[in-house]
Amino acid sequence: MPAPKKVSESHSIKSEMIMPNDTNTLGNLMGGNLMRMVDVTGAIAAQRHCNRIVVTASIDNVSFTNKVPLGDVITLEAKVTRSFNTSMEVIVKVYSENIPAGTKNHTNTAFLTFVAVDQSGRPIEIAEAIPETDEEKELFEAALRRRQLRLVLGGRMQPSDATELKAIFGI
Amino acid sequence: MPAPKKVSESHSIKSEMIMPNDTNTLGNLMGGNLMRMVDVTGAIAAQRHCNRIVVTASIDNVSFTNKVPLGDVITLEAKVTRSFNTSMEVIVKVYSENIPAGTKNHTNTAFLTFVAVDQSGRPIEIAEAIPETDEEKELFEAALRRRQLRLVLGGRMQPSDATELKAIFGI
Amino acid sequence: MPAPKKVSESHSIKSEMIMPNDTNTLGNLMGGNLMRMVDVTGAIAAQRHCNRIVVTASIDNVSFTNKVPLGDVITLEAKVTRSFNTSMEVIVKVYSENIPAGTKNHTNTAFLTFVAVDQSGRPIEIAEAIPETDEEKELFEAALRRRQLRLVLGGRMQPSDATELKAIFGI
Amino acid sequence: MPAPKKVSESHSIKSEMIMPNDTNTLGNLMGGNLMRMVDVTGAIAAQRHCNRIVVTASIDNVSFTNKVPLGDVITLEAKVTRSFNTSMEVIVKVYSENIPAGTKNHTNTAFLTFVAVDQSGRPIEIAEAIPETDEEKELFEAALRRRQLRLVLGGRMQPSDATELKAIFGI
Amino acid sequence: MPAPKKVSESHSIKSEMIMPNDTNTLGNLMGGNLMRMVDVTGAIAAQRHCNRIVVTASIDNVSFTNKVPLGDVITLEAKVTRSFNTSMEVIVKVYSENIPAGTKNHTNTAFLTFVAVDQSGRPIEIAEAIPETDEEKELFEAALRRRQLRLVLGGRMQPSDATELKAIFGI
Amino acid sequence: MPAPKKVSESHSIKSEMIMPNDTNTLGNLMGGNLMRMVDVTGAIAAQRHCNRIVVTASIDNVSFTNKVPLGDVITLEAKVTRSFNTSMEVIVKVYSENIPAGTKNHTNTAFLTFVAVDQSGRPIEIAEAIPETDEEKELFEAALRRRQLRLVLGGRMQPSDATELKAIFGI
Repeated sequence: MPAPKKVSESHSIKSEMIMPNDTNTLGNLMGGNLMRMVDVTGAIAAQRHCNRIVVTASIDNVSFTNKVPLGDVITLEAKVTRSFNTSMEVIVKVYSENIPAGTKNHTNTAFLTFVAVDQSGRPIEIAEAIPETDEEKELFEAALRRRQLRLVLGGRMQPSDATELKAIFGI
Repeated sequence: MPAPKKVSESHSIKSEMIMPNDTNTLGNLMGGNLMRMVDVTGAIAAQRHCNRIVVTASIDNVSFTNKVPLGDVITLEAKVTRSFNTSMEVIVKVYSENIPAGTKNHTNTAFLTFVAVDQSGRPIEIAEAIPETDEEKELFEAALRRRQLRLVLGGRMQPSDATELKAIFGI
Repeated sequence: MPAPKKVSESHSIKSEMIMPNDTNTLGNLMGGNLMRMVDVTGAIAAQRHCNRIVVTASIDNVSFTNKVPLGDVITLEAKVTRSFNTSMEVIVKVYSENIPAGTKNHTNTAFLTFVAVDQSGRPIEIAEAIPETDEEKELFEAALRRRQLRLVLGGRMQPSDATELKAIFGI
Repeated sequence: MPAPKKVSESHSIKSEMIMPNDTNTLGNLMGGNLMRMVDVTGAIAAQRHCNRIVVTASIDNVSFTNKVPLGDVITLEAKVTRSFNTSMEVIVKVYSENIPAGTKNHTNTAFLTFVAVDQSGRPIEIAEAIPETDEEKELFEAALRRRQLRLVLGGRMQPSDATELKAIFGI
Repeated sequence: MPAPKKVSESHSIKSEMIMPNDTNTLGNLMGGNLMRMVDVTGAIAAQRHCNRIVVTASIDNVSFTNKVPLGDVITLEAKVTRSFNTSMEVIVKVYSENIPAGTKNHTNTAFLTFVAVDQSGRPIEIAEAIPETDEEKELFEAALRRRQLRLVLGGRMQPSDATELKAIFGI
Repeated sequence: MPAPKKVSESHSIKSEMIMPNDTNTLGNLMGGNLMRMVDVTGAIAAQRHCNRIVVTASIDNVSFTNKVPLGDVITLEAKVTRSFNTSMEVIVKVYSENIPAGTKNHTNTAFLTFVAVDQSGRPIEIAEAIPETDEEKELFEAALRRRQLRLVLGGRMQPSDATELKAIFGI
């Protein structure tokens, strides 16, 4: 197994301007187009952590509560939260800015998992991710809970075995 | 409230060929690009149900277990599962085919919610969705559970109030 | 020669939302952009019939009489009409919907021919296409006439040999 | 009616390099992508003739006999052949070059019709097109024949009235 | 005139993965595609400085010495160097990484000027840019020299008046 | 060294219509998008001169003084000005037309250098470019001056050795 790496080493940023083709009939960023940017930025953070080619394994529930109109600047910030053998979880936070109006919103947070693979697509063991700040440590802890939720939702874990999840539902 | 509509009236299909720019470094469809197609096809199904402009409110957890290489045909099938006042849940099933090889896989299932809006973006009440087949009825029933999970994950419902969810975790 | 296949086995559907970059200066779908979607959907139907890689051999006369504005949903439905040794004719019908307004138009009908090829691009013999419904049978019959017209227009058949065509011009 | 204009005043050229996303599974230009370029170049020639916004009314039969691989340069040359009240026919010739190999092919010829419209999309009378060279005169003459074929194919003219067409079929 | 702002407040980053359509025949990033990303990232930095809509006024000489192959991650870092009444100079540094190989190169440096405009496109006075670090101060100083070079090259300044430039040529 | 070729043999033209995705927030062509078209058209002219694959080596200072709105036609005209061992300079002139309004502007002039390479990317000696018209001869002469400026700006030539440049600055 490669030597552990700090979470901060995976930090990746992408600022982008919303162009006409990114928008829907109302002139706002379409959810699916945002997901494309989220996937690319998350993949770069994952690559930076494991120094491997990566493929997307899953994208967790994402909500779209703020609308992002044409001409806004959108900034995506991604970093690894925790690694698991050959896969890793990445958080991508999305902010939109109307710079002339001076407004900035935190529009979305997405959690993705990526698998590190070799040239023929076979999974490869990756380095441990070391959290340093309080926020990183909290994300590292909760990653286990989100992972169990993914496994339960994907039918690969019995809900009764999801010990971390039970905490959420107060049992 | 508009008159109820059958689930089947919202059925939408999109077959697409995987082009070079849809792929990643390994020559397979990127997760984020698939999400863009999922969002568009889901939005068409939602429009067909409510006869309104719709905006994406959320996309549930999606897994990417099968790889879809360049040249494959991907087919997305979407329909509304249940409506809630001004929003509705849509299921999008994704199949990939290597037609010359004669292989076809069910690669993904995604659940999205869309909100019906007027021209100025304000939510509008929509028709009830009437399930007919066994599969539609099952999806209709489970929609409540998925909705509670979304609300809990989005911090808009106390886990202790998520009565439907408790069933999953055997409590 | 592979075993004959039913026309209905080649049926392919593509629903798409008109995005800003699909449109012209007046905000309507450009003819050339529609042709791109027609070609992709037709190619999928052709692949489904012959289970081979296919290349476009010709696109027949297409008229654009209805305008399709930004935000409309366009649905393309394609199926093989008849096969000829290594090539096949495909019909693609195009419908546009303004779903909030509740309007739906049949905007275009296109006939394309595709050639089945192997990995090095050499033509390959394909299965016969068996029409079942009345509409399929009619399309199957008239395919010969359209083929003669293509050959005459392409300078590969003497008009005097185009026996099927003569019927059109009442001689 | 505006003053007549020479055919040569409408001449438009577009050279383009074939990029990965223009190609099919075999690495060659897709027919539908070529049609998009044909439509844009033809529309520019039509605009140059009538000094109006134009919309595509029809694209005649196009054959694809030569394959155009990734990296080739494709050149489209368009000019008006004849005008009819509010519409005009445009010819687009397509050449492909593999410049390092020193090969150049005439790959396609397409005839399109465009209608001149005002800002609200209403047809507008346009100038006559004056052919000068022998080739332009020949195209001008034959335009009437192609127009009758379009009308017959579109069901807007009785074959028995297509006097120009009859000449083709030797009657 | 708005209150002066620190150079660091305009800092903008964009990480992007090189996709098939970004590349040329040899599979490397095309110069023109890089320029598109440079322009977008530079425009975001300019907006962040002046809190206005901005339009590109010029792009200085850019060299392409390193090739950036498909799959590489490219990172663009932009910040304002100096403001001039209604325009500002922005530096964009470009780095490419082959993350699996562990290599990172500084591939390009570009200087652009942007003009701040109101909704009808009229230039607007902007804030002064205050450099803080040694590198920022050096860029601030040399901005005058680059500006004179632009004016001379654009025919808007007599070489004999380009006092800053003379220093370069040792006179 | 291959036999010399006339400058006129490299002439390349590209007319393009400005589409929604080419534009910025104000509805005008973005500078970076224009640069992409300039690079492609320049590369075709360079290929035509040297009959080799070419890669962009540099793009000189470009100014954007005229705005080019959505729907305008843009025409790029490129030709080689002078060749140097394995590289060549290309001039690309850009014109924009609002055809319905009958206006045409010369919006930009760009100078690029391209290097001729073999399949593995190694530079290859190219033919001399022979200017014929007065304009071509003038561009040929001044190419040396622009080359020295590029070398000085790129830190590959001492300003004191830039004999051609000194003429500009009156020394």
